[in-house]
Amino acid sequence: MQSRLRTLMLCGVVVWAGCAAPNPEGVVGEEPAAKERPAADSAEEVRQDWAIVVHGGAGTPPRDMSDERRQGYEQALLGAVAAGEEHLAAGGTAVDAVELMVVLLEDDERFNAGKGAVFTHDAVHELDAAVMDGSDRSCGAVAGVKTVRNPIRLARLVMDRSPHVFLIGEGAEQFATEMEVERVENSWFDTEGRRKSLERALASEKEEKHGTVGAVALDTHGNLAAATSTGGLTNKRFGRVGDVPVIGAGTYADNACCGISGTGKGEQFIRHTVARSIAARVQFEGLSIDEAARRVFAEHLDDGDGGVIMIDRAGRIGMHYNTGGMYRAWADASGTRGVAIWEQE
Amino acid sequence: MQSRLRTLMLCGVVVWAGCAAPNPEGVVGEEPAAKERPAADSAEEVRQDWAIVVHGGAGTPPRDMSDERRQGYEQALLGAVAAGEEHLAAGGTAVDAVELMVVLLEDDERFNAGKGAVFTHDAVHELDAAVMDGSDRSCGAVAGVKTVRNPIRLARLVMDRSPHVFLIGEGAEQFATEMEVERVENSWFDTEGRRKSLERALASEKEEKHGTVGAVALDTHGNLAAATSTGGLTNKRFGRVGDVPVIGAGTYADNACCGISGTGKGEQFIRHTVARSIAARVQFEGLSIDEAARRVFAEHLDDGDGGVIMIDRAGRIGMHYNTGGMYRAWADASGTRGVAIWEQE
Repeated sequence: MQSRLRTLMLCGVVVWAGCAAPNPEGVVGEEPAAKERPAADSAEEVRQDWAIVVHGGAGTPPRDMSDERRQGYEQALLGAVAAGEEHLAAGGTAVDAVELMVVLLEDDERFNAGKGAVFTHDAVHELDAAVMDGSDRSCGAVAGVKTVRNPIRLARLVMDRSPHVFLIGEGAEQFATEMEVERVENSWFDTEGRRKSLERALASEKEEKHGTVGAVALDTHGNLAAATSTGGLTNKRFGRVGDVPVIGAGTYADNACCGISGTGKGEQFIRHTVARSIAARVQFEGLSIDEAARRVFAEHLDDGDGGVIMIDRAGRIGMHYNTGGMYRAWADASGTRGVAIWEQE
Repeated sequence: MQSRLRTLMLCGVVVWAGCAAPNPEGVVGEEPAAKERPAADSAEEVRQDWAIVVHGGAGTPPRDMSDERRQGYEQALLGAVAAGEEHLAAGGTAVDAVELMVVLLEDDERFNAGKGAVFTHDAVHELDAAVMDGSDRSCGAVAGVKTVRNPIRLARLVMDRSPHVFLIGEGAEQFATEMEVERVENSWFDTEGRRKSLERALASEKEEKHGTVGAVALDTHGNLAAATSTGGLTNKRFGRVGDVPVIGAGTYADNACCGISGTGKGEQFIRHTVARSIAARVQFEGLSIDEAARRVFAEHLDDGDGGVIMIDRAGRIGMHYNTGGMYRAWADASGTRGVAIWEQE
């Protein structure tokens, strides 16, 4: 179990403060937000009016990445955060914010979700996504989707407009047709980089992992939400589903404790119900999100398995991973904001 | 929330004691089982060498059911338990026992799993199943399978023979071909009763719920396992997946706390991660399985949502539901055994 212990907990790397932060006070609606929010664990804690964290996957980002490439990632992550911030600061809901942010990351071909999704073994794309609203634990998930430009939008529609919470394959496509969501040819998701990854993976007969995207938000009404979207594993076998659409594995939100979006080896996240296990330790053991994640990773996951982003009900942001790095950015109403890829920038 | 409170907890209805129970002592292998089993919460507790519980669905079994029909259900459930008992008493593993018992229930057309599975809206059958081994939380799940005679066998093969834990649709079928599991025409699953249910459901434009099957076992080595299999909802939309293959929703097993198999409204079980939530309250709050289930049902589920069967690490059996009844049977090494459909027999 020695190998499981290289877990890193990072919250403080603040790189970006250039964007004029909206003043969250004054735009939170008629009722002060705090009245509607559950009490934080400690009366001493500062409660954030809103908070956001996004990820673009955990893995081994090359240390020799060019400045240009790195800045591209950072701008993409910060762009998503800025959009979420604008929405939340204006009193918008957490569930809308996480959907909006994930749509932006899906549309960015740097990330393995939506445009830029990896190729399966059969050189097509099969996309999974899930969203969860912590205010009532309503949720929606899709798996094995092939022609929906933004799978997270379809997951949201499953949540809002269907009696079900989980639709797969052709059934999910049929629902997409009914809902009139934007469709694309499967080849629209193709990118050169992902094709090279497939060629490499086919040559080595291995699957290759690339960054899922996800977002967690706390809104001014005190509600948490989480959303995750992925193309899965390069060279994955036909029909394989990972943790993303499995509520409690890669995605979970409950106002009683926290919102979580995970990224990493889906099989491990399912086996150990990683998101729900972290949330349960916050909820029933009274641990902080950081300590809960640290324990779940140390006790159950292997080095390199992945990472999570988290926000608790007081708006504290947590990011935890046991890989070489995790693409991530965050902001809250106090003016804290940042972006990071590795532990040290 | 008043309507959520009609939860019934039943353990003591013992109807069957006619079968010659094997003597579990003496066949538990070289090491006394207790040495390998985690300590129970209380030193006063009797630890069972092995324990079994199965279900054939929760719902509203008609009170005016004929004796013949009722006896048919009872014999089917008791037959599964007897097979599991023989296996466990001979030192077999919990994960083999739950697979074996679920295969028997799948093959029995009374239940909505395998032969006798309900029809989808499009008048075909789409089957889901999952199995989980509490010794290491390894698991396997399949969803949307159409030609695999025993979906639980395929779920087990996903667990044992694939690098993945969750395969869906055509990908799961392709894996079934590789594994050479028994295949049938989709129409093999047809039964007259289920066709009538579909006609009724189509006429009312509603989906209809029928009993999933499941099994939980503790073996003489101290390991827990759970398995669940279902045809889902009559008239369900194409591609809908319920809680059964979602690890932590309808199926969960962890030697640290308990094994659980659920049956009922899959969407509710997914939203509230019912199995994992019960297990978490046992694990982190120190509640008994009965109390944990009572709280999760009272706090999160609506009247009529479903039921769970459970075994904790000391071999205590729990059964909890908030429907009119739940088909179930149980046995343990102390000689306790029984079968029940309603709260009073």
